[in-house]
Amino acid sequence: MRRIEDLGERRIIEIILNCIDLMPNMPIPFGDDASAIEINHEKLAVIKSDMLVGKTDVPPGMNFRQAARKALVMNISDMAAKGVKPIAALVSLGVPRGLTEEDIKQIGQGLNEGAREYNAYILGGDTNEASDLIISCSILGIGGKNKFVRREGARLGDIVAVTGVFGKAPSGLKILMENLSVSAEIKDVLTEAVLMPRARLREGLTLAEMGAATSSIDSSDGLAWSLYELSKASNVGFLVEEIPIDPEVIRFAEEYNLDPIELSLYGGEEYELLVTVKPESWEKAKESIEELGTPLTRIGLVTEEKEIILKTKGRITHIEKRGWEHFKMAKQTSEINL
Amino acid sequence: MRRIEDLGERRIIEIILNCIDLMPNMPIPFGDDASAIEINHEKLAVIKSDMLVGKTDVPPGMNFRQAARKALVMNISDMAAKGVKPIAALVSLGVPRGLTEEDIKQIGQGLNEGAREYNAYILGGDTNEASDLIISCSILGIGGKNKFVRREGARLGDIVAVTGVFGKAPSGLKILMENLSVSAEIKDVLTEAVLMPRARLREGLTLAEMGAATSSIDSSDGLAWSLYELSKASNVGFLVEEIPIDPEVIRFAEEYNLDPIELSLYGGEEYELLVTVKPESWEKAKESIEELGTPLTRIGLVTEEKEIILKTKGRITHIEKRGWEHFKMAKQTSEINL
Repeated sequence: MRRIEDLGERRIIEIILNCIDLMPNMPIPFGDDASAIEINHEKLAVIKSDMLVGKTDVPPGMNFRQAARKALVMNISDMAAKGVKPIAALVSLGVPRGLTEEDIKQIGQGLNEGAREYNAYILGGDTNEASDLIISCSILGIGGKNKFVRREGARLGDIVAVTGVFGKAPSGLKILMENLSVSAEIKDVLTEAVLMPRARLREGLTLAEMGAATSSIDSSDGLAWSLYELSKASNVGFLVEEIPIDPEVIRFAEEYNLDPIELSLYGGEEYELLVTVKPESWEKAKESIEELGTPLTRIGLVTEEKEIILKTKGRITHIEKRGWEHFKMAKQTSEINL
Repeated sequence: MRRIEDLGERRIIEIILNCIDLMPNMPIPFGDDASAIEINHEKLAVIKSDMLVGKTDVPPGMNFRQAARKALVMNISDMAAKGVKPIAALVSLGVPRGLTEEDIKQIGQGLNEGAREYNAYILGGDTNEASDLIISCSILGIGGKNKFVRREGARLGDIVAVTGVFGKAPSGLKILMENLSVSAEIKDVLTEAVLMPRARLREGLTLAEMGAATSSIDSSDGLAWSLYELSKASNVGFLVEEIPIDPEVIRFAEEYNLDPIELSLYGGEEYELLVTVKPESWEKAKESIEELGTPLTRIGLVTEEKEIILKTKGRITHIEKRGWEHFKMAKQTSEINL
């Protein structure tokens, strides 16, 4: 009988899914980034849960406050991708022995920060002793039934776009994990991206409100992985012609002889949005997001062939189906939705 | 600096609460058994999270299927106490290495059973590697704003009542924990109560629908503890004159020279409802619950003095503020709401 360390998380999810009765007429398909039930003909109660586990989700150098804040941000990022305003959060805590009163205070502060930065509130939860630090968050919001942006929905000819720039968090993670010595200036920028991630909530809400996005996902498991997830759900392919990379990432990559595209495509912990946008909405969408101070970059097009192609400087390669890997789980990828 | 093993869970919660900004105009006060946001003037989106941790919530003899089912039941029991129909569940799993494919299948089956027994569905979740088995559930339901039964609301003269009979799960737990040899017949009944707990959902929904219950809580942390929680929230006391005890518990207690009242008051893992009922609604409430095949027993009265008194056979004692203690946490009590 195979053990879970050989199964991988995807197989675990497959086994569990085989046991689950699907709710009839689900307003949002199973496997999207958030789930929902219908309140009435117009509105959905949208819910999202994701668990942070200390040993796999908290890199060296991240303190308790940052870890607790991150537990909220990673959930809020999914609500952002779906275009749903998070209103309330519940937190189930597992705390290992040995933590001090001060550590708990830091956790409390981080939880509150993570919620309040996005105008949400923590409404309750529970606490338990556990061997690892566990911060399991659930976020609740109310969404318009026709505003919810699914993974499914990208159509041939839609523009593929991302918020922000890529590579910072994966580079910062590499610096923290391998304790690399880089100039303080680069180090600060890159590690800050890991330690204090920000969810693109205003951006996600704006795109949903405008009805501009035809499909959306965040890039927390890596841009390449997210492209594959959207491709699978929407049954289309993508031609990627540009990836906006942070200049500090390019400097860091040069210094360590790394490929900045590799860092940007296959790293994780990057909470940008990957969206497909109707061509006729593109200019207005770009303008609206840039008014928020965030770049929205066209990185390519939706294609009929179900392949994900990278075409830069005349070179054509296949983007690989590789995702972000856990700090301690070489074979597996992080927090995959059931 | 004190460490969490010396702080206790209540102090941990206090520290965290001190860091949290409270949502203005919360429809349900912080610290009740479920949380809610307003959908409109009539309806609430109600959410509840509670985490099962293998080493503290799974007694010897409980298999993975039962543990996963229990993770749902303990959350649904809280929804039952509040009179809210659970519709959907999300599950965040932490799975330790060494589990097999079959174990995961058992977990999947238990999760589905726990939801489907109460007509709810699992809509999503995530999975992670962790050192302990962690099953963190969140339940979502839609409730009527005026139907929600809080911890606050018991009024002087209200009848105090419980569903079912007490002592089975605490006795069963003792049998499992201490590997006691009792007759197969008693053992089956008592351990079944621990391994396959049932939430009093139909009962809770019926009492809420009738508007009969003025306050309510489940008894999962022990009947005594629940009496104290209702007393604190409603700012009243209770005179308890009767505790319905299961006959098998009396036989078991005799055999092991235990006090059946002790087992019934201070044990936990018992998912009955403790409610206060308006005197004018009592007969109808009792009848309606008994139509469901469940006894609803008047155990006492709400009193002005904020004490919890037990008066049986002419003897008057104070019920102590002691609750259910974790399997491995001698000093602490289980799953306390933030």
